[in-house]
Amino acid sequence: MSDFSFVGKPTPLIDGPAKITGNLKYIGDLKLPGMLHARFVLSTYAHAKLGAIDANAALDIPGVQSVLTADDLPSITPSSRAKLMLARERVIFVGQPVAIVLADSAAAAADGADLVMVDYEPLEAVTSMDAALADDATVIWPTGIPTGAEDEAAHGADTGGESESDDEEASNIAGKTRMEKGDVASAFAQADVVAERTFETPMVHQSSIETQGWVVQPNPISGGVTLWGSIQSPFGVRLDVADALGVPESDVTVYGMPVGGAFGAKFGLYEALIALAAVTVGKPVSLILTRGEELLSTNPAPALRISGKLGFDSGGELLAMQADVTADTGVYPSGLGGFAAMQFASFYTCDNLLLESTNVVTNKQSVGAYRAPTSPTAFMAVETLFDEAAQQLGMDPVELRLKNAAKEGDVAPDGGDFPTIGMVETLEAARQHPLWRNREQAREQGRGIGIAIGGWMGGLEPGAAVCKLNRDGVLQLQIGTADLSGTPTSFAVLAAEAYGISPDKVRFVYSDTDSAPYGGGVGGSKTLYTLGAAVLRAAEDARRQTLAIAAEEFEVSSEDLEIVDGRVQVRGFPDRSISLGEIAGKGMTFGGRYAPVHGNGRQAITDRAPSFCAQIAEVEVDEETGDVNLLNLAVVQDVGRAINPLAVEGQMQGGAVQGVGWALLEEMRYDADGQLLSGSWMDYAMPDSVQAAPIQTQIVEVPSRSGPFGARGVGEPPVIPTVAAIANAVADATGLRLSQTPMTAPRVLEALAQR
Amino acid sequence: MSDFSFVGKPTPLIDGPAKITGNLKYIGDLKLPGMLHARFVLSTYAHAKLGAIDANAALDIPGVQSVLTADDLPSITPSSRAKLMLARERVIFVGQPVAIVLADSAAAAADGADLVMVDYEPLEAVTSMDAALADDATVIWPTGIPTGAEDEAAHGADTGGESESDDEEASNIAGKTRMEKGDVASAFAQADVVAERTFETPMVHQSSIETQGWVVQPNPISGGVTLWGSIQSPFGVRLDVADALGVPESDVTVYGMPVGGAFGAKFGLYEALIALAAVTVGKPVSLILTRGEELLSTNPAPALRISGKLGFDSGGELLAMQADVTADTGVYPSGLGGFAAMQFASFYTCDNLLLESTNVVTNKQSVGAYRAPTSPTAFMAVETLFDEAAQQLGMDPVELRLKNAAKEGDVAPDGGDFPTIGMVETLEAARQHPLWRNREQAREQGRGIGIAIGGWMGGLEPGAAVCKLNRDGVLQLQIGTADLSGTPTSFAVLAAEAYGISPDKVRFVYSDTDSAPYGGGVGGSKTLYTLGAAVLRAAEDARRQTLAIAAEEFEVSSEDLEIVDGRVQVRGFPDRSISLGEIAGKGMTFGGRYAPVHGNGRQAITDRAPSFCAQIAEVEVDEETGDVNLLNLAVVQDVGRAINPLAVEGQMQGGAVQGVGWALLEEMRYDADGQLLSGSWMDYAMPDSVQAAPIQTQIVEVPSRSGPFGARGVGEPPVIPTVAAIANAVADATGLRLSQTPMTAPRVLEALAQR
Repeated sequence: MSDFSFVGKPTPLIDGPAKITGNLKYIGDLKLPGMLHARFVLSTYAHAKLGAIDANAALDIPGVQSVLTADDLPSITPSSRAKLMLARERVIFVGQPVAIVLADSAAAAADGADLVMVDYEPLEAVTSMDAALADDATVIWPTGIPTGAEDEAAHGADTGGESESDDEEASNIAGKTRMEKGDVASAFAQADVVAERTFETPMVHQSSIETQGWVVQPNPISGGVTLWGSIQSPFGVRLDVADALGVPESDVTVYGMPVGGAFGAKFGLYEALIALAAVTVGKPVSLILTRGEELLSTNPAPALRISGKLGFDSGGELLAMQADVTADTGVYPSGLGGFAAMQFASFYTCDNLLLESTNVVTNKQSVGAYRAPTSPTAFMAVETLFDEAAQQLGMDPVELRLKNAAKEGDVAPDGGDFPTIGMVETLEAARQHPLWRNREQAREQGRGIGIAIGGWMGGLEPGAAVCKLNRDGVLQLQIGTADLSGTPTSFAVLAAEAYGISPDKVRFVYSDTDSAPYGGGVGGSKTLYTLGAAVLRAAEDARRQTLAIAAEEFEVSSEDLEIVDGRVQVRGFPDRSISLGEIAGKGMTFGGRYAPVHGNGRQAITDRAPSFCAQIAEVEVDEETGDVNLLNLAVVQDVGRAINPLAVEGQMQGGAVQGVGWALLEEMRYDADGQLLSGSWMDYAMPDSVQAAPIQTQIVEVPSRSGPFGARGVGEPPVIPTVAAIANAVADATGLRLSQTPMTAPRVLEALAQR
Repeated sequence: MSDFSFVGKPTPLIDGPAKITGNLKYIGDLKLPGMLHARFVLSTYAHAKLGAIDANAALDIPGVQSVLTADDLPSITPSSRAKLMLARERVIFVGQPVAIVLADSAAAAADGADLVMVDYEPLEAVTSMDAALADDATVIWPTGIPTGAEDEAAHGADTGGESESDDEEASNIAGKTRMEKGDVASAFAQADVVAERTFETPMVHQSSIETQGWVVQPNPISGGVTLWGSIQSPFGVRLDVADALGVPESDVTVYGMPVGGAFGAKFGLYEALIALAAVTVGKPVSLILTRGEELLSTNPAPALRISGKLGFDSGGELLAMQADVTADTGVYPSGLGGFAAMQFASFYTCDNLLLESTNVVTNKQSVGAYRAPTSPTAFMAVETLFDEAAQQLGMDPVELRLKNAAKEGDVAPDGGDFPTIGMVETLEAARQHPLWRNREQAREQGRGIGIAIGGWMGGLEPGAAVCKLNRDGVLQLQIGTADLSGTPTSFAVLAAEAYGISPDKVRFVYSDTDSAPYGGGVGGSKTLYTLGAAVLRAAEDARRQTLAIAAEEFEVSSEDLEIVDGRVQVRGFPDRSISLGEIAGKGMTFGGRYAPVHGNGRQAITDRAPSFCAQIAEVEVDEETGDVNLLNLAVVQDVGRAINPLAVEGQMQGGAVQGVGWALLEEMRYDADGQLLSGSWMDYAMPDSVQAAPIQTQIVEVPSRSGPFGARGVGEPPVIPTVAAIANAVADATGLRLSQTPMTAPRVLEALAQR
C-alpha cells in the first residue's frame, strides 16, 4: 500500500463542484436550435386491438407541430424490448407508446398528447406468470415470440445453460434452460440435511433520480444522426440507431451525457424510435421521460420465482443444489431466468447440480437489467437455505459457508477455473465484524442478526484509452464510456499513479463516439477493471514518451529520469529538471523537433475477477405491526484494490441501499388488468435515509490478476446479499423464514399470525 | 504512380455535398441557449484621447443586456495585435474596439452599438510609413512599442536575420534587422550588370468569404471556457485564451469550426476579448464580424517598400543581392519586414548578401499573416530585377534563373543545406509550357508574356493522428487541425492508401482540443506535409492491428494476409477471408478477446520541403486607358506528390487568383487621417472570374524526403510569383517596369505618359 502515491487515498469526485452547483449539464439541459419536444401517447390497455388514432384536437394546440404514428415511420418489427417502435395493429402492455406528439415546447407536447384520441378494442390480457402458464392461457404472441433478447449480455448477465428448443405449439413460454451436473437425485437421497423453499420477488424498478432522456439531431446529408442521451453504452446505442436508420454506424454519432443514475436500465430503449422520428420530421427532437412514463414504460427487473433446494451431509458438505426458476419478463422475452439459476449455484462448490428455468411473457412492460440482474433473488434463495441448513446441522452459518465456498482453482460457472478470489477472505472479514461478533448482545435485546454473501463473476470488454500531455503540465485522459458512477475520478487516480503526477493534474475528457477510443457499456462491474487497464497503459505510454523527450534534452537515459512535482529530473541532480508543461510544449509548437506526447492504451482482458460482498443486518421486528426496522447494515466487500476508497464506499453503500429497497419496500404492483398500481413515487416506495439504516462499509482487498493494481469491479456485489441478510436477520429475530419480497409489515404480520 | 490505388486520383471533397446543400454548419450557424450577440463600438479616430462612454441610450434598446468597456474587464495590456483588448485611455486606430454591446439578438446589438456615445479628443495621427519615419513624427508609443509579435511564426514566416537592439530614444521604428554575407560592395563593383529598383505594395486584405466569428461558453466551475470559432489554430487559440483568463490551457476547450476562408488572418484575434466578455457576463457570447468590421478591424498584410539590387557578371552569374525593406505594420509591430528581406534572397545562390529591414508602426489597424506573407512583394522585386538583368545581359530570362537557381545541397536560408528541391524542374517545366513556348506569336499580337518563379521553405510542426476501425468497416480518422482547404479529403486518401481501403470508407472526425490529437495551426503549407505523415503512421498502425487479429483468427502470419475489397484474406485463399467490420466487432463487444483497432501516429518531421511555383502571364495593355487585361495565366508548381490532384489544383488556382488581386486590384487605401477608404467590397476590389483570367495548372512532382508519399506543401507558393509574372508581362508588352501595386489603369496610364 505504501508503494502508492495516490491509489487507495480518498479522492473526491472531480466533477463534484460542477454537480453540486448545477453546472454539470445533463440531457434535460440540452437545447438545440429548432428542437422539438416529444411526448408519447401511451396505451391505456394491457392488450387491445388498435383502432383509429385521431390527432386533430392535438394538432390544434398552439405549438404542436406533428403527431406521428406507426404509419409515419418505417415498418420495423421490434426484435426486443430495447428496440420498441410505436404500436401497430395492437397494443400489448399498458404504457406502450402508440403515438409521438412533437411540439415547440414540452408543455404543448404534453397538452397535445392528452388530446390524441385512440380507439381501442380491449382483448384478454395475461398479467401474471401463473396466468401465462395456465393451460387455457391466452397466447400473447400467437405467431411466435420475438427472439432478440441479447441485451442482458451487456450487463454481464450471460444466461448460461443450454436453451431448449421449443418446437411445441405456441405458448407464453419464451424459453427454458436446463443445466445438470452429477446426479442430483442420488445426492439428495444421501443428504443428511435438506433445505428447500420457494422464493418470490416482484418486478422492481431501477428508478434513477434522472429519468431516461435523449436528444437527436438528424443529418440530412448522411441520413444519420447525432444523438445525446442519458445512456450507459454510447457505442452500443450507435449500432442500434444505425441499424434502425439503415445507415453505417459511422454515420451516427452518440454523445453519452453525464448520467443521473442508470443501474442497467439505460442500455438502450427509445433511441432508435426517437432517431426515426427526428429523421422523419427533419428536425432535432428531444424526449425526456416524465416520472410516470419512466415507471410505466421502461424496463424494470423481472418478477422471479425460485424453488431452491440444498442437500448437505452431516459434516456440512454441500452435496446437491437444485433450482427451478420462473421469470415473468413482461411482454418481450429475456434470458434472465436462466441467469438467476446460474447465480443460485455459482459460488459454492458442489458436484451435483440441477438448474432449470422458464421465462414467460405477460402483458406488462418488459424487463431489462438492474444492478446484478436477478441476483438479489438468487442469493435470497441460496443464502436463506444455507442459513436454514446451518440451523438444522447445528453449525455456525459462516462456518458452513466457508466450508463450501469457492476457492482459486475450483470450477467457475463459465466452465473455467476460478482465479484468485476473495470469497473466503470476505466471509472471514464479515465474521470478525463487530455487528456479527456482538450478535448475542443484540439478540438479548430482542433483535435479530443475519448474514449473507453474494458473488458476481464480473463482465469483460475490450477497450482503449488515450493520455495527452498539455503545455500546462496537465495530462488529458480520454475514454469512450459514459459516467454513471464516478469512474472518471478513479481513472484519473490510475493515470496519475502510472504517469507520476497528482490526480488534480489529470483532466478527464468527455467526448462522443466519433472522438473517443472504444469503450463498452458501463455495467457488469467491468468498467474500472477492464478500461482501467487501458488507462494504465495509456498513462505509461505517455510517461515513456515524456521521459524520452527529457532524456534527449538532458542527454541521459530515460532510466536515469524521474517525475517529481510536475517536473522531469535527472535522478540525483534535482537542479537538472524540466517541467512537464515545457516538455509538452516542445511537441506542440511551430518547428518543434519532438512528436506530441500522445499515449495510447488498448486492452482485451479475458480473465475474470469475481468479487464478493457479505452483509450483516441487524433488525428489530415489531410483532404488533409487522414492521421490520433495519437498525444496522454492515457491508464487507472484496474490491481487489480500492483505487478510490470514496468511490468504492459510495458503490457499497448505494448498492446496499438498493438492496434494502428490494428487501423491505419496492414492488411494481399490477392489478389483474395489467394496470400499474405503483405508478408514481408516491406509490412506488424506495428507502429514504432513515429506512436505509446506518451502513458500515469494510473493504477487503484480495488483488485480482489483471485489474489495474489488482482492482476488481465493485458495482454489482453490494446489492446482491442485502435481501438475504435481512431475511436471515428477520428469521433470527422471529424464527420466520420469509420467502417473498418486499417484506412489508402486512406480509410479516400475516406470517407472524401463521407462525 | 501505378503503385498507388488512390493517391494521385482526383477525389472530390468529402464534405462537398454538405457544403453545397448548406448543411455544413459554420460558426454563424451556432446558437447556444441564452447566447448573447456582441457588436463592437469601433473607434472613429486613428488617434484620440478616449473620454466618457455613455451607454444609456444603448441600454434603452429592448434586448440590449449590457455594454462593456475596458473598465468592466480585467486590466490586460495587449502585447500584440492578436491580443487586442478594448481601448483604454486612448484609441490608436480607426476601427479599434472601444466597447462591446451584448444583446439578445444581433439586430439589437447593432442598434445598441450605434447609440453608444463616445467622447474623443483627437490627437495627431501617423498614417503612413514616411510620416512615421519623419524626423518630427509624432511617436505613437512614447513609452515603448509592445514586443509580443511572435504570431507570424505560426505561418512559417520566420523573421530571420538578427534584430538590432534599439537603445535609442522612442521612435516609430519597431525593429530593424540586418543580415550580411560576403562582401556586397566589392561584388557590386565587379558586376557587369546591376539591376535595381524600389517596389511598393499597399496593405492587402485576406477578405475571406466568411468573416471572422466566435462563440464562447463560459464554465463557471473551472473559470475556463469552451470556444467555437472560424479559426486556423485551435490549439494556439486555446493557449491564448487560457493566458488571458488566467487558467491552465486544459480548462479551455476550442472547437475549430469549418472555415470559410482564412489565408493567415484567422490565427487569433478577438478570442481572448470575447472570452473575457463571456466570463464577465456569465453567459455564452457570439461575435460574427460584419464585412465592414472585417475590413476595418482585423489584420491585413503589411504595406511594404523594398529597394532591391542584383549584380551579375557578364555570364549571368549572380554576384550580389541587396534588399532594404520598410514595412508599415500598422499600430502594433510585426517582424514581417525582415521576413520579406529573407524571401528576396532565399532561392538563388549568391555569396554576397546584404539584407536589411525596418518595421515601422502607424495609426492603422495592424497586420497579420496573409498567404506566403510578404512574398508577393519580395518576389515582385527579385523577379522583376532578374528580368531586367536578363534583358541587359541579352539572356533568356529562364536561362538566367536556371543558372542561379538553388539546388539540393546549396545553402538554404535557414543555414542548412537544401534537401531535394524542384526549382530547376519547375523552371524547366515552365519553359516547356505552351504559353511560354508560343510567346513570340503572342507578342506579334501586341501582347506581353512574363514569367516568374516563387519559392517557399515550408513550415514544420509536430502532430499526431488516430485511426479507429468501426463495425461497418469504416476507418475513422481524427486529427487536431481546422479544415481550411479540404485537407481532410487528402488525409482520407492517405489513410485509405496506407490502410488498404477506398477513401469513401474513411470518415474524417471533426473534434475539439480536448478530444483531438495535437495538430498545429493550419498555415505555412505544412499541414498535409507534416500531419499527413502522422496520418500515414496511424493508418499503418491500424492496419497492423487489423492484420494481427485476422492472423490469430486464421492461424497464419500477418505477412500472409492482404486487405482486398474491405476484407482481410489469406493470400492465395480468397475464400479464407473476414470483413473489416467483423474484425472491428471482435474488439468492440462484450467479452471480446481482442483489443479495439485504434491506430496511433506521431510525427516531428524536422526536414523542410521547399516548394516552387512558376507562373507565366499573358497580358494585353490598353494604352488608351491603361487597363491591363490578363488573358492567360499558367501555374506550374512542384508539389512533390499530388495526393489529391483536385485539391492541389484548387490551391494552385486559388493562390493565383489572389495573386491577380495583388497585382491588379487590391489595396487598403487610407486617407491622411487614417480613415479606410476601401472599407467595403464595393470599394475594396477583388478579382472576379473574368478578371482572374483562364488559369492553366501544371503539376510537377519532385518527391520530398519526408512528406507522405513525397508530398510537399502546396498552399503558399501559387500566390507568390503572380505579381512578378504580370509585371514582367506588362514590361514585355510596353517596356514599362511597374514597381507599385495594384497595377491599376490610372497608374499604368501615368507610367505610359512618363515613358
